[in-house]
Amino acid sequence: MAFSSHVASRLEEQAIELPSWAFGNSGTRFRVFGTPGTPRDPFEKIADAAQVHKFTGLAPSVALHIPWDKVDDYAELRKHAEAHGVALGTINSNTFQDEDYKLGSLAHRDDRIRRKAIDHHLECIDIMDETGSRDLKIWLADGTNYAGQDDMRGRQDRMAESLQEIYARIGEQQRLVLEYKIFEPAFYHMDVPDWGTSYAQVAALGERATVCLDTGHHAPSTNIEFIVMQLLRLGKLGSFDFNSRNYADDDLIVGAADPFQLFRIIVEVIRGGGYGKDGDTAFMLDQCHNIEDKIPGQIRSVLNVQEMTARALLLDREALTSAQVEGDVLTANGIFMDAFYTDVRADLAEYRVERGLPADPMAAFADSGYLAAIAEERVGGVQAGWGA
Amino acid sequence: MAFSSHVASRLEEQAIELPSWAFGNSGTRFRVFGTPGTPRDPFEKIADAAQVHKFTGLAPSVALHIPWDKVDDYAELRKHAEAHGVALGTINSNTFQDEDYKLGSLAHRDDRIRRKAIDHHLECIDIMDETGSRDLKIWLADGTNYAGQDDMRGRQDRMAESLQEIYARIGEQQRLVLEYKIFEPAFYHMDVPDWGTSYAQVAALGERATVCLDTGHHAPSTNIEFIVMQLLRLGKLGSFDFNSRNYADDDLIVGAADPFQLFRIIVEVIRGGGYGKDGDTAFMLDQCHNIEDKIPGQIRSVLNVQEMTARALLLDREALTSAQVEGDVLTANGIFMDAFYTDVRADLAEYRVERGLPADPMAAFADSGYLAAIAEERVGGVQAGWGA
Amino acid sequence: MAFSSHVASRLEEQAIELPSWAFGNSGTRFRVFGTPGTPRDPFEKIADAAQVHKFTGLAPSVALHIPWDKVDDYAELRKHAEAHGVALGTINSNTFQDEDYKLGSLAHRDDRIRRKAIDHHLECIDIMDETGSRDLKIWLADGTNYAGQDDMRGRQDRMAESLQEIYARIGEQQRLVLEYKIFEPAFYHMDVPDWGTSYAQVAALGERATVCLDTGHHAPSTNIEFIVMQLLRLGKLGSFDFNSRNYADDDLIVGAADPFQLFRIIVEVIRGGGYGKDGDTAFMLDQCHNIEDKIPGQIRSVLNVQEMTARALLLDREALTSAQVEGDVLTANGIFMDAFYTDVRADLAEYRVERGLPADPMAAFADSGYLAAIAEERVGGVQAGWGA
Amino acid sequence: MAFSSHVASRLEEQAIELPSWAFGNSGTRFRVFGTPGTPRDPFEKIADAAQVHKFTGLAPSVALHIPWDKVDDYAELRKHAEAHGVALGTINSNTFQDEDYKLGSLAHRDDRIRRKAIDHHLECIDIMDETGSRDLKIWLADGTNYAGQDDMRGRQDRMAESLQEIYARIGEQQRLVLEYKIFEPAFYHMDVPDWGTSYAQVAALGERATVCLDTGHHAPSTNIEFIVMQLLRLGKLGSFDFNSRNYADDDLIVGAADPFQLFRIIVEVIRGGGYGKDGDTAFMLDQCHNIEDKIPGQIRSVLNVQEMTARALLLDREALTSAQVEGDVLTANGIFMDAFYTDVRADLAEYRVERGLPADPMAAFADSGYLAAIAEERVGGVQAGWGA
Repeated sequence: MAFSSHVASRLEEQAIELPSWAFGNSGTRFRVFGTPGTPRDPFEKIADAAQVHKFTGLAPSVALHIPWDKVDDYAELRKHAEAHGVALGTINSNTFQDEDYKLGSLAHRDDRIRRKAIDHHLECIDIMDETGSRDLKIWLADGTNYAGQDDMRGRQDRMAESLQEIYARIGEQQRLVLEYKIFEPAFYHMDVPDWGTSYAQVAALGERATVCLDTGHHAPSTNIEFIVMQLLRLGKLGSFDFNSRNYADDDLIVGAADPFQLFRIIVEVIRGGGYGKDGDTAFMLDQCHNIEDKIPGQIRSVLNVQEMTARALLLDREALTSAQVEGDVLTANGIFMDAFYTDVRADLAEYRVERGLPADPMAAFADSGYLAAIAEERVGGVQAGWGA
Repeated sequence: MAFSSHVASRLEEQAIELPSWAFGNSGTRFRVFGTPGTPRDPFEKIADAAQVHKFTGLAPSVALHIPWDKVDDYAELRKHAEAHGVALGTINSNTFQDEDYKLGSLAHRDDRIRRKAIDHHLECIDIMDETGSRDLKIWLADGTNYAGQDDMRGRQDRMAESLQEIYARIGEQQRLVLEYKIFEPAFYHMDVPDWGTSYAQVAALGERATVCLDTGHHAPSTNIEFIVMQLLRLGKLGSFDFNSRNYADDDLIVGAADPFQLFRIIVEVIRGGGYGKDGDTAFMLDQCHNIEDKIPGQIRSVLNVQEMTARALLLDREALTSAQVEGDVLTANGIFMDAFYTDVRADLAEYRVERGLPADPMAAFADSGYLAAIAEERVGGVQAGWGA
Repeated sequence: MAFSSHVASRLEEQAIELPSWAFGNSGTRFRVFGTPGTPRDPFEKIADAAQVHKFTGLAPSVALHIPWDKVDDYAELRKHAEAHGVALGTINSNTFQDEDYKLGSLAHRDDRIRRKAIDHHLECIDIMDETGSRDLKIWLADGTNYAGQDDMRGRQDRMAESLQEIYARIGEQQRLVLEYKIFEPAFYHMDVPDWGTSYAQVAALGERATVCLDTGHHAPSTNIEFIVMQLLRLGKLGSFDFNSRNYADDDLIVGAADPFQLFRIIVEVIRGGGYGKDGDTAFMLDQCHNIEDKIPGQIRSVLNVQEMTARALLLDREALTSAQVEGDVLTANGIFMDAFYTDVRADLAEYRVERGLPADPMAAFADSGYLAAIAEERVGGVQAGWGA
Repeated sequence: MAFSSHVASRLEEQAIELPSWAFGNSGTRFRVFGTPGTPRDPFEKIADAAQVHKFTGLAPSVALHIPWDKVDDYAELRKHAEAHGVALGTINSNTFQDEDYKLGSLAHRDDRIRRKAIDHHLECIDIMDETGSRDLKIWLADGTNYAGQDDMRGRQDRMAESLQEIYARIGEQQRLVLEYKIFEPAFYHMDVPDWGTSYAQVAALGERATVCLDTGHHAPSTNIEFIVMQLLRLGKLGSFDFNSRNYADDDLIVGAADPFQLFRIIVEVIRGGGYGKDGDTAFMLDQCHNIEDKIPGQIRSVLNVQEMTARALLLDREALTSAQVEGDVLTANGIFMDAFYTDVRADLAEYRVERGLPADPMAAFADSGYLAAIAEERVGGVQAGWGA
C-alpha cells in the first residue's frame, strides 16, 4: 500500500469543482483561439467536465455561469449531469457583459441598473433552488478607470445595500460568496479589490456570507497562504478559485507557475480545518485554456491539486511543531520542505488503481479518443465562449 | 506673451502620432463596449483622428495597423488623410490574430508559419512605400504560457533570423522599430520582454533598427525615465507608445495614472536630445478607450503630453545643474519639482489662441457636435475593433 | 486674498505630527551616514522638531519612540517641548531591537518573551499617562523568513491575546493604533501584513482600537486611497504614517515619489471626514533622511502635505458629483485633475505671511543658520539613531 | 547506482563559491542579530566556509569582500585557505561604506571621489594578483533617491569612463563582472538597475567584461531564466549571485522562496552551456542569514542548488524537444515538470557516500559539534559584519 490509511482516507475526501466555462473558448483581449469540438451549449460543457471526473475521481461537480449556462429546464440539465456522473454546483452571476453594466452593476449610481443587477442575482438564486446548488458566487467587475470618475465611498455603500437585498433572499442551506480582485477589467479601482473589503462586506451581511479567494487576484508578492490562514481563522473562507499566474490574472493551469505556493496554500487549508469533509471551504478551478486543450488542461489541474494535497498530508506536523517550539528555523523549514520534495506520483498511481481509476489519467484520457470524437461530432453551431 | 519665445518655439516642434485603432472599439477580455459613431473603416478612423489635430494642432499623423487598416488603394487613403490635414505615419504589423500564430510568429518553430510572418512584414514595407511611412513598428505577441512549452533560446535565435530578413528589405529612409513587453498575451515568457532584449536584437541588425518604448509594458516599479535616458544614450530610442497604467498594460489616457512620471519621462527625452526637430524619436499614442469617448480621449491625451512638455521646458536646467554640482539634494529636487508644480494651462490656452487654435480644445470639440453627427451618419456596417 | 475663507479656515485645521526619530541618523542596511549636529538625546530631537513647526506652523507635536526616547522625567521633557512650542504626541512601542525579539514579540511562542513584550507596551501606556499622549502606536516586526518556520495561525491567535491585554490597559481618552506592513524585516510573512489583518484585529478589541496606514507599507500597485476610503467608512482609520516610496518601504520625503497619489489620498481623507477638527485621524510623518538634511527634509514633507491639501480643498465637488451622476467619465476626471493641476504655491505663501509665517519656509530656515549652529554646538556624545 | 554515470559525472562538475561575508553577522536596517562563534577576521570566515565544502564537496572556493577582508598578507590567507581545503575566489569591491560615497562612487560628479573609487578597484586587482582570483565583481550602490537629485545621463557616462580605466588594468586571465540591481540602497534610480544596462556597459568594455546576475535584484514578476538564456546567448553571463526572495532583495537561502524558479534557472544554464567544466559562468551564493545559523544556512543553500541541478540533469531533453516540435503544450510542460517533481534526495545521498561524503550533510555537520566549539573558542574581539 502506497499511502498510510490515514493519508489515503484524507485524499478520498477531496472534491474539486470544475467551471463550465473552462470548456468553452477563452483567450486574451488580443485573440480567442477556438478548438474543434468545443461545446456549443451547457449540456456539452457538462459532458466534457464529466470526462475529468471519470478519469480522476476528483471532480464530482460543475459550476455554472449565468447567463452563459442558462437553459429552459434546469431539472433536465441536472438529470443530464447526474447521468454523466456529476452534480451541478456553484452558480456564478455575471454583471459584466450587458451594455448597461459599462460603469458598474451592484455599485452603479443609477437605480435602474442597480435594480437590474440585483434582480439578476435573485434570478440566480431561483436557479440555485432548481439546481440544488449551495453557493451563489459573486465576482463584480465594478470599478473605475480614472481617478474622480466616481465616488468610491458612495459605490461601496450602494454595493453593501445591494448585497443585503441579495443576501436576504439566500436560503437557509445556501451561501453568498463574494470574490475579490485587485484589477481588471477596471484599471483605477475595483469595488472589491482585496480580501479585507470582501471580509468587511460579508461580515456585515451575516453567517452565510463568506469570501472567495481566487489565487490569481492579488498584488505581486502577496503571501496568499497567510490570507487563507486569516480567513479560516475568521470563519469566512467560503471557497477557492484555483488557477496560477506569473504576472496578473493569467488564469493558467493550477500549480503551473509556482507549485510550492500551491503546496503552502493547501498546507494552510488543512491546518485551518478547511479541507475535506470537516471543512466548509469549496474548491473550484477558474482557468482559461488559451492555447492548450481544455479537457486535459482541467485534468492536469485537478491532478496538480491532488499531488500537492498528498504532499501536504505527508507533512510531519508533530516534528514540525517540535522544531518550531525550539525556535529551530532551519530544521522547521527542512521538515516543511521534506514534505514538498517527496515524490508522490507513483503512490498516487497506485492509489488510483486501487479505486478503479487509471494510474495515469492524462494518458488514459488521451488514449480514449474523446477529443477526436467530439471534434467530429460537434460540427456546426456556435462554440461557447465568454460571450455565451 | 505667456511663454518665452524659446519655450513657445520648442512647443511648436511637438508632433504626436495617433493610432488609427484608438478610434475603433477596444476593451478587455471580459467585454468590448461599442459606441455609436465608431468608424467602420480606415477612412473613417482617419477622419476622426484628424479632429484631434484640428482642435489641438498636435497630432499631424496617423499610424496604421495592418491588416486592420488594409485598403485596396493606399494612394487614395493617403490623399484622404491629406485632405483631412493629416499624414499617414508608422505602419504596425500584426501577427497575433491569425489562427496560425497561436504559438508564435517570427519565433515560431514551423518554417511555414515563420515564412508567413516574415512575408507579412515584407508586405507592410510595401505598404510603407506607398504610404510614405518611415517606420515599421513590430510588436510581437510571441511567447509561451508554460515552462518547457518551447525552447526560449531557439525562439530567440529564430526571431533574430526573421528580423534580419525583414531588416534587409527596409529602405534607406525607413526604420525598423522593435517594441518590447513584459507579458500579455503570453503569460510565462515573451520573446521580447524587456528593453535589453529589444536593444540586443536591434543592435545586431544595424543603424536603422531601433527600440520602441511603450510606457505600459514594464514590470511594477520600473524606472522608465532611466530607460529613456539609456536608450537615447545608446542612440536607439526609435519611438514611444504613450499611455498610462496603474497595474499592467492598462492602456489608459496618457498622464492619467501618474502625471509626474510623464513629466520625468519628457524631461529625460529633452535632456537626451530626443525631443522636437533635432530628435529622431517618434511620439505615438497607444491606448484603449474602453469606457470613455474615443476622440476626446485622444484629445485629452495629446493635451496631457503637451502640458507636461511645457512644464519640462520650464525646468531651470542651469540652476538644477548648479545644485547637483553642490550635491545639494533638497535644492536640486526642489528645482525639479518647481517645474512640475507650475500651472501652464492658462499660458497654453494663450499659446493656442495665438496660433488660431481653440483655447480649450476639449470644450471646443464638445461644442462642435462632431460626435452626434457621426453617431447619426454612421449607421449600419460593422464597427472597427481589434479584429478588423 | 489668495484662498477663499473656507479653504483658508480648513487649511488652519491642519496639524502634522513629526517623528522624533526622523531627526536622528537613519539609513539602509548598507550604511547609515551621519550628519554634523545630529541630536544626541530626545531633548535635542524635540528642539529640532520645533524648528519645523516654527517655520511652517504645521507641526505642533512630536511622536516619541520607546525606548529610543526614554528619559528619566517625562514631565521635564513635556515642559521642554512646550517651551519650544510643541507638544508630545503619539508613543511608539519598539519590540524589534532586543535580542529576545529575534523570532517575534507579541506573537512569540515563548510565554516569557511575549510577557516581556506586553509589559513593554504597558510601560508605554504609563509613559502616555505622563506625556499626555492620546495614541499608542504599535508596529510589529513580528513575522518569519521561511515557510514552516512557525505556525502563522498560532501566532495570529497569540498576538490577538497580547493585544487584548494591552488594550485593557488603554485609558478612556487613549487609543491603540495597529500598523500593518507587507514585509521587512520579515521576508516570508509578517504577522500584520495588510489592512485587513489590522482591521480584523482591532475590530475584535473594541472602539478605541484603530488602524495606522503607513503609505509605504503596501504591495506594488495597491490603490492606497481606496483603503483610506474603506477604513474611514468602517470608522477605523486611526492614523497615517506619511512618507513616499518607489519600490518598497523607501521612507522618502512625502510626496516626492508620486505627488498625485498624495493628492488622491488627501481628497479621500476629506471626503470621508478624516480631515481637520471634525476628524479622528492623526497625521504623522514616518521617514528616513538617508542623504538629505533632516530638518529641511521634514519641512519639505509637511509643506508637500499642505500643498496637496490646498489642492484637494479646491476640488469642485459639486461639479464633480454632477459629472459623476451623468456618467461623464472624461469630465469627472477632468474636474479632478483641474484641482491637482492648480498651482497653489503663491497663494500658500500669502496665506503664511498673513499668519506671521515666512512665505518660503525652506529659504527662511536655510537663512536662519540653525544647521550651522547645531553642528557647532553639538560636539561629542553619541548621535541618536535607530539604535538609541 | 543511483544516477546514470552521465548525471553523476555532470554533478561532479559543480562548484559553488561561498561569500566570506555570509559567515559574519548581517541583518536588516532594523537590527543585526549576532550569534556566538561568529568569525572576527577573514581567517575565521574561511575556516567556517571550509566546513561547508568539507560536508558537501560543493564549495571549493571563497569570495572576498574588500575592505572587509583586507589582510596584511594575502599569501598567508591563501595558504590558510588551502590548508582548509578551499581556494580564494572572486574579489568583491566595496564603494558604499565610506563617508565619501554618500552620493555615489564610480558615477560621482566629484573627480576626487571618482578617483578614489577607481583606485579602490585597482587595489582590488592588485589583491587578485596575489590571491590568484579570476574575477573582479563590481556591485555599485550608486544612484539617487529623488528625481532631479542628479543627472542620470552624466552619471552613466562617468561610470562608463571609470569602468574603462578599471578594465584596462584587468589581466589577460582575469575578468570584470558588473552586477545590476533594481533598487536599494538608492530609491529613485540605480546607475546599474537592470541587465540591459549592465550588458550595454560591459559590451562597450570588451571580451573580458561580463554581467553578474543576482537572483534577488529584479522587479517583481521578472522572468529570470529568460535573462539567463539571453545573457548566455550573448556570451555575457559571467556569474551568478544566488539567493532567494519573496519581496525585494531578501537574501534568503537559495531555493527557499521558490524552488521551481531555481530549477528553471538551472535548466536554462545547462541548456545555454553555462554549466560545469564547459561553461564560463561562475556560481556564487550571496545571502544574509539574519535569523538562522550561518554555516548550516550555507550548507542548505549549496545542497538546494545541487538538488535542483540533479533534477535539471534528469530532464528528458529529447522527449521535450519532440513535444515542442509537435506544438504539444501540455506534454512539453508535463515532461518539464516530471524532472522537477522527481525526488533526487535518496540518490544524492548515495552519490555522496560513494564519494566519501556524509549522506546527510546537514545532520553530519550538526553532529560535528563545530558550532559549539567556535562559540566556546571565539570569545572576545569584534564579530565580523557588513561594516568590517
